[in-house]
Amino acid sequence: MAQRQMKLGFMMHGNGTGWGDWRHPDAQPGASTDFAYYRRQAQIAEAARFDFLFVADSVHITPKSSPHYLNRFEPLTILSALAAVTDHIGLVGTLTVSYAEPFNVARQFASLDQLSGGRAGWNVVTSWLEGSARNYSREKHYDHATRYRLAAEHLDVVQGLWDSWEDDALVHDKASGRFFDPDKLHRLDHRGDFFQVEGPLNIARSPQGQPVIFQAGASEDGRDFAAARSDAIFVQPGDLAGAQAYYADVKRRAAGFGRDPDTLFVLPGLRPVIGSTEAEAERKYQAFTGLTSIEDALLIMARSFNEHDFSQYDLDAPFPDVAHVAANSNRSTSERIIALARAENLTLRQTAQRFATPRTDFIGTPEQVADAFGRWFTGRGADGFVFNNSLPDELSVFADTVVPILQARGLFRTEYEGTTFRDSLGLAKPANRNTTRRLAAE
Amino acid sequence: MAQRQMKLGFMMHGNGTGWGDWRHPDAQPGASTDFAYYRRQAQIAEAARFDFLFVADSVHITPKSSPHYLNRFEPLTILSALAAVTDHIGLVGTLTVSYAEPFNVARQFASLDQLSGGRAGWNVVTSWLEGSARNYSREKHYDHATRYRLAAEHLDVVQGLWDSWEDDALVHDKASGRFFDPDKLHRLDHRGDFFQVEGPLNIARSPQGQPVIFQAGASEDGRDFAAARSDAIFVQPGDLAGAQAYYADVKRRAAGFGRDPDTLFVLPGLRPVIGSTEAEAERKYQAFTGLTSIEDALLIMARSFNEHDFSQYDLDAPFPDVAHVAANSNRSTSERIIALARAENLTLRQTAQRFATPRTDFIGTPEQVADAFGRWFTGRGADGFVFNNSLPDELSVFADTVVPILQARGLFRTEYEGTTFRDSLGLAKPANRNTTRRLAAE
Repeated sequence: MAQRQMKLGFMMHGNGTGWGDWRHPDAQPGASTDFAYYRRQAQIAEAARFDFLFVADSVHITPKSSPHYLNRFEPLTILSALAAVTDHIGLVGTLTVSYAEPFNVARQFASLDQLSGGRAGWNVVTSWLEGSARNYSREKHYDHATRYRLAAEHLDVVQGLWDSWEDDALVHDKASGRFFDPDKLHRLDHRGDFFQVEGPLNIARSPQGQPVIFQAGASEDGRDFAAARSDAIFVQPGDLAGAQAYYADVKRRAAGFGRDPDTLFVLPGLRPVIGSTEAEAERKYQAFTGLTSIEDALLIMARSFNEHDFSQYDLDAPFPDVAHVAANSNRSTSERIIALARAENLTLRQTAQRFATPRTDFIGTPEQVADAFGRWFTGRGADGFVFNNSLPDELSVFADTVVPILQARGLFRTEYEGTTFRDSLGLAKPANRNTTRRLAAE
Repeated sequence: MAQRQMKLGFMMHGNGTGWGDWRHPDAQPGASTDFAYYRRQAQIAEAARFDFLFVADSVHITPKSSPHYLNRFEPLTILSALAAVTDHIGLVGTLTVSYAEPFNVARQFASLDQLSGGRAGWNVVTSWLEGSARNYSREKHYDHATRYRLAAEHLDVVQGLWDSWEDDALVHDKASGRFFDPDKLHRLDHRGDFFQVEGPLNIARSPQGQPVIFQAGASEDGRDFAAARSDAIFVQPGDLAGAQAYYADVKRRAAGFGRDPDTLFVLPGLRPVIGSTEAEAERKYQAFTGLTSIEDALLIMARSFNEHDFSQYDLDAPFPDVAHVAANSNRSTSERIIALARAENLTLRQTAQRFATPRTDFIGTPEQVADAFGRWFTGRGADGFVFNNSLPDELSVFADTVVPILQARGLFRTEYEGTTFRDSLGLAKPANRNTTRRLAAE
């Protein structure tokens, strides 16, 4: 059996990932709506044989939102544009199940999948900002448990619609006038608690069968959902020990759902800081820490606590008890912050600053960063990584210095394995449920 | 003042416009999900200096739907991909207000507008197939009057969101840490009968200010809506006299709404058949008529009558009385069919066949087709046309033979006037309502 290799994604944020990144001397603050910038980065990532591009999202802003949320491309549209200027790289877009009709979601991802030749992925999220509901004619946002029930049903509908057409349904026989085989076109007729959708979908399956499913679950519900339903999990990493525990847990859950755990990829989002020397890497890291004020650091943290007002607390007292705020919020991140503050007995100021500019294992020379990647990967803390630094030159530096080391060590591909995103991931094309059902009945 | 010039759009349907087009010897039946096909046609249209590409849509199919509805790209995704491989041509997508959240619609068109450098257009439709509701967890489709009230409010919300950011709101001052001017970012706070949307939108205005609005109104409500709110009207043409009457009517309505009627473009969709001789053109036309069976012709017509079952009538008796079916349907088309059948005293069979393969003024040599374009244009039956024949070679033939004649006669541009879609149309960038309001208050 071939050596296990890591999967690499690139998180696309035009003007930087952190709150203050746009202030970095190298940053282009308008990059988040600059298609040329996105195209250039996508092509660098593809030349380096990355598995996929990843576009995050949110559907509600206020004047206090992070600059990189305020003005940016919508995921499906930017990914479709990038499909036209790339050939191999996967295209993963975030889209909330809370505020988009499953028929529209199914169609847009299927269309992206078709126009990219089978390279689409959907990062399924349940929006966690209370404000989102107010952009969608709703009084209140769903609670945490309801959101996961809704997410499961939404995904049922979308994946069901994706199988509307069997792979050989389109006959295109000009002589007889038979465009398709009606026995191979299927209505869904879904009638559930949240959705009633008849179908069929008005677009055929792509070369990869169905788009790849991403998730980011940290709560009990979230981990089960991800382990049961997703092909890849995007994780916010803490330290290696924590990553290993999470990894083991979701793989165990996947096995519990009857899955081969190797078909579920755990992918922490990382922000390597690479210097030609350790000292240069440290200088680059320090340059980031100065970009975010303590006021902004509190606001950044508040996003994971339902916009909780942290300015009411003493900055230099121990981190306040806000566990009750975390319960119906972005639980993975809020619980990680609380745990960090407790473990190291940090003040509110220290916690916020540490969260705004984390110090990770991935700061150093190319060799050191490659070592850290290898340690996390072979140590089963990760199946790969999402590179999360979108300053103009950082991806190039990584591609030019770290990727060749990973390739030399046999940890990362040197050529794409096939043409679709599933080919890159080594995932089989899923059988069409309607084909399976029809053949079983025959 | 410069000579008035016609506007030209290209209707993109991969595998043909008519029901039987995919059976044409030249047709590529899988073209509707073939990105390379779309790219090639888009680039031909741009090389010929067309104003825009137009993507039609529908959100419900059955096994009886026209082949060109069954399997095709979703408009926003294919247009975004085309944005990446074109530089000047406008990108107009159809999207129904009935089943898409205004916040999502505003974002996706704004994102397309940004990534194309200001070339987006939205064809605002109210879905007219009863079945559509069943793909969107709704019991019943809205009635005609309600749909237009909803459309007006939906458009209010979308256009309001598009003005969330004033043009100079993004300051990007790295030294002071001021990313934007909060006085120039505006919530919408819309509270209406159908929608409650807070805003602001999380994407700034594009170089053209707002996407261009298309509409296709034929009923009283529809004509008023188009005349009041749209920049361009897509029309299904009958004869020149009918086109002139429609043209005069909507221009008069536009003036009644206080608009300059010259900023509203009436654009019939046409399917020219061009031959190097009249005889060749006639042969090409006849080749189309044989592609659609009478059974299919009845189904095609049924689409404009809520999928009414026409097989219950005698094919060779006079066209049946189905005016009651037309009332809550695609009124423009259904009323035109009824009027045609009455005026020429046609049987059901004759009406269906005529509708499936219309014989128009636009069949002949390049000179004859250019003459017809000129006659409709200078005779004020149209301000331009949407070329509606997507067989592989027909656009090239038109571009190579008819366009040069129109250009030589001064009726069509030889170079793009600017960089945005509004530049091509000669439409001013609209003032941001929030800027206007803020300056008035100062």
